[in-house]
Order: sequence, then structure tokens, then C-alpha cells
Amino acid sequence: MINVQFAALPARWDTYREPLKRAFAEAGLTVDMRQDHPADQVDYVVYAPNSDLQDFTPYTRCKAVLNLWAGVEKIVGNQTLTMPLCRMVDPGLTAGMVEWVSGHVLRYHLDIDRSIAMQDRWEPVVPPLAFERPVTVLGLGALGSACAQSLARIGFPVTGWSRSAKEIDGITCLHGDDGLKQALSEAEIVILLLPDTPATNNILNADTLAMLPKGARIINPGRGPLIDDAALLEALDSGQVGHATLDVFRVEPLPADDPYWAHPNVTVTPHIAAETRASTASQVIAENIRRGEAGEPFLHLVDRSLGY
Amino acid sequence: MINVQFAALPARWDTYREPLKRAFAEAGLTVDMRQDHPADQVDYVVYAPNSDLQDFTPYTRCKAVLNLWAGVEKIVGNQTLTMPLCRMVDPGLTAGMVEWVSGHVLRYHLDIDRSIAMQDRWEPVVPPLAFERPVTVLGLGALGSACAQSLARIGFPVTGWSRSAKEIDGITCLHGDDGLKQALSEAEIVILLLPDTPATNNILNADTLAMLPKGARIINPGRGPLIDDAALLEALDSGQVGHATLDVFRVEPLPADDPYWAHPNVTVTPHIAAETRASTASQVIAENIRRGEAGEPFLHLVDRSLGY
Repeated sequence: MINVQFAALPARWDTYREPLKRAFAEAGLTVDMRQDHPADQVDYVVYAPNSDLQDFTPYTRCKAVLNLWAGVEKIVGNQTLTMPLCRMVDPGLTAGMVEWVSGHVLRYHLDIDRSIAMQDRWEPVVPPLAFERPVTVLGLGALGSACAQSLARIGFPVTGWSRSAKEIDGITCLHGDDGLKQALSEAEIVILLLPDTPATNNILNADTLAMLPKGARIINPGRGPLIDDAALLEALDSGQVGHATLDVFRVEPLPADDPYWAHPNVTVTPHIAAETRASTASQVIAENIRRGEAGEPFLHLVDRSLGY
Repeated sequence: MINVQFAALPARWDTYREPLKRAFAEAGLTVDMRQDHPADQVDYVVYAPNSDLQDFTPYTRCKAVLNLWAGVEKIVGNQTLTMPLCRMVDPGLTAGMVEWVSGHVLRYHLDIDRSIAMQDRWEPVVPPLAFERPVTVLGLGALGSACAQSLARIGFPVTGWSRSAKEIDGITCLHGDDGLKQALSEAEIVILLLPDTPATNNILNADTLAMLPKGARIINPGRGPLIDDAALLEALDSGQVGHATLDVFRVEPLPADDPYWAHPNVTVTPHIAAETRASTASQVIAENIRRGEAGEPFLHLVDRSLGY
């Protein structure tokens, strides 16, 4: 019997209990997972850095602390945490982003909002085919390139833009300021997946929004500060931007009086595009416990000297 | 000189005349295409089942009737049509269908309707990943198998069902009555892409709808008669079926007083999922005429005993 302590906020227990149980069973592990094991009987801690557990001293036989978060900056400096510490690297997060982006691009492509709204008359409008609908992805990191490739597989002509030059099979890759102008000038749908840095702050502003073809649609599952919000609202009002679906914001939750909520051509989603998934994260946790029991090296082990 | 009779509604003539001429020239065929050849001088009929031409008796030398539509149910029983009859299998139609189906499956998967509707509060609900969302495609013809494969590429576990046994890479293929029960029993989203035949009429009825997991969603871009409408409305009212997106109906345009229009859990779309594209369809017509002239077997020949 392997004793696993689950140390995270109470809501996480509800989310993770069943997925972890399934993952343990699939990995062939016999586990007693609780929130209240006596500390000195715990073999592994499944951990969120915002939980009450901050003193690991009493966990004398614990073989590893398995973080539920990708980030460990809140816990890596804890001097009582002397056992191996593993980060979460969840394949589900990338998959979820690709699905969310593909779904919203197809929603715009097929004008699904019009279909949902128009339940009172038969007025066939056949959309163009995907190969006739240019799509641009700003940002070609792990998430951006995965989304670009999925959209290309669906049939869209995809242009990707990044600060430095990249090469991705099946994607027209552009970079630099001239590349940005070209990437925006034909984009009927633009997806923002850039990191939040001083260089990307307000990258969509009055000037760059004006480079888009009139009526272009914008999807932002990346970072709130990528968009100059006043400029986007103005472009939405003028029709330069036809619609925007925004999942991230400078302030979250988005305040109730923010004009994005009420704008008829904006869909606000509550930061759901990229989320660690209980199912796939539980498989990573179970695999690391299996490795610990088998004496194999842990996945995603944190190097304390590097801090990640 | 090959005499081709174009028999379709007048608007189709405007759409098809130039694309067909180009396709004939590209296929090296010398064709005289008209709407008014004397019947006994016609070699091939390019045909839409809603045209005035319903009596094929005078077309004594006609080598084949080449349908502009994928569906042949309105014409396959015509006793005067004794020459070979070919269905349209248009690559542009297939691409459009795959895009429409993928978009509506992702719409259900991500609960995009909820996102669009909920523009007044920040309430994150993260959907499962595609690999946790079983999808079933009824019908594994050209359209069904293309949709099934696209959904599998996006990441859904896809089960396909057809009357007779099939094998498609990456798809769990089932057939027969037992197969149907199994295909429906785990399907969170069901797509109907079966032909309209006596055997498929009302294939979704009170009995088969009850096989679905509670709250399943149904997408019908296939044929209206596949669904027992009264049974579906009852299943929608009871919550057995969570939502339905219907693109095809027994009577089209769907009458204004049809209960589907007003049902809160139904999206009616006006037969837009599958549209033949003139450019690609014309190439298929030209290829079949080339085959007819060369004595080669026709593409997409209808089997009268099966009805499609």
C-alpha cells in the first residue's frame, strides 16, 4: 500500500480525486490517497504551492513531492522541502489549447454564431472552404506552432509570425516588423499566442489593427497585455475588426464594468483555453509514483540550483 | 462531338456552364452542351433531380445520367431511368462537409454556445479533452469516413457504424444491429451521414435514442428521414438528448411552424453543410464522360438494388 497525501485547496480534491484514482489503477498502483495521513506515514505528496502545507519537516519517509502546477517558483526556495520535487508538464494543456483555438476558428469560419442566432428563417449562406480563408497565428512557441499545424491540417492557409525566424512544415513563417505587416494584411482570423514581454506589449494597437483586412476576427488565448484594449474597442466599433473572442485580460477576473462584457461583437471567455487537465495531469502523477516505486528516475524533476 | 444535355434549374446553368466547359476542355473532350438538345440525340445528361426532366424514355442513346447531387433518392426509383446513373462525389463538397461537421463537433465539445450566451459573469468551466469525448459517425461512405478521420485527427475517439462491415484506419468500425447499439451506447456526440434508404429511415427513433448516454448531442447533416422527429423532440424534452443541430429535414425549407425552430435545444441550419462546388464537381462530370467514351467503368455508379 502506497500512502499519498493530497495537499491542495479543497476544490482541487473534488477535481482530482477520481482522475487520480483511475490513473493509479491504470498504472497498477495500490494507493491509499487522503488529505489527512499522519505526516510520518506519507510516501508521496501531491502538491499545490497555495495549500496549507508549507513545512515538510514531519514528512520523514516521503519519497517525492509531485507538484500539480507547472510553476514551482513559490516552493523551490522552501528549505524544509529536501526530498525530490517534480514540476507538472501536462500534455493536456497543449491539447486543450489546440482544441479551443480550432473550435473558435471554425466557429468564425462557419459563422456558427449566425446559425445559433437565426432560428426564425431559412436563409442559406454557404461559407467558403477553409483553403480560401487565410488565418494568421502570432507566436510560434509550443502552443502557437501546435495550433498553426492543427489549423493547417483542417485545411486553412496558415501564416505564423514570431519575433525571430522559424521554420514549420506547412506554415508560412514570417518574422520581424515587415513580416508582421504581411502576416496581418491578409489575415481573416488572427490568433494571439505570444508570450507577455516588453516587446509584445500592445502588439495589437491602432496601427497594427489597421493593417488587417476590414472585418477580420481576433482570438486571444495568449496574454491580456498583447492587446491595446482601447484601440481594439475602437476598431470593433468602426467595423475594422468584425469580432473578437478574448480569453485573457490585463485584470482577471474581468471586472463587471469592463466594456468587453457588453460589446455585441466580443465574446469573453473566463481564461479556460489553457488549463492543466485533471485526467492527463493525474497520469503524469501516477507515472512518477510508478517510477519512484520501481527505482527509476522521476519525470520533470526540479533542479534546485536552476530553480526549475 | 459529344452531346450533353444540361437538365437542372436555370440558376445552375449560370453556375455550371463555364466550369463545365473548362473541365471538358481539360479532359480533352469535344462537347456540345445545351439545355435543349433533342432527346434522341443526347449522349449524356448532367442532371439535378429537381429539374423538369422526369421522363427519360425519349433519351434513347443516352449513355449515362450524371447527377449533380450526392443524393439520388428522388430519382433512383424512376422506372424510365434505365441507363447508368452516377452520384456526385465532389471533393469540394466533402471538404465543406468535413469543415462543417468538425466545427459543430468542436462547438459541442467546447460548449461554445454557453460561452456566447454567458457574457455577464466569470465562471470558468474547463471542458474535457477530445480524447475523453467519444464521438460516433453513423454512415461510413465518402462523407462519413472523411468526417470520421478528420475528427480522429483532432483527437476524438471515433466510432463509425455502417450497414456492412468496413475498415478505416484509426476508427472503431462497427456494423449491423448489435454494432449500432454499441456505437450509440457511449456516444456523447452522434453525427448522421447515412444515405436515405428504407433501411435507414427513422434509424434514430425512440428505441435507438434511448441507447445513447443521457444528454448526448446529435448532428444531422445527412438526410431528414434518418430521424423520427417526434421521438427526437420527446428525447430533447426529457433531456435524454441534450441538443441537436439539424441541417436537413423531411420538408425543406423547414416550415415556419415546425417545432424544431422554437426548441431551445435545437439549432436549425438551412441545408448548408454539403454544397456541391461547381469547379470541383465539373471535373468529376468530365472524368465520367471521358470514362464513358473510353469504355471504362463509371465513377460513383448507383447500385439500384441498394438504392445508392
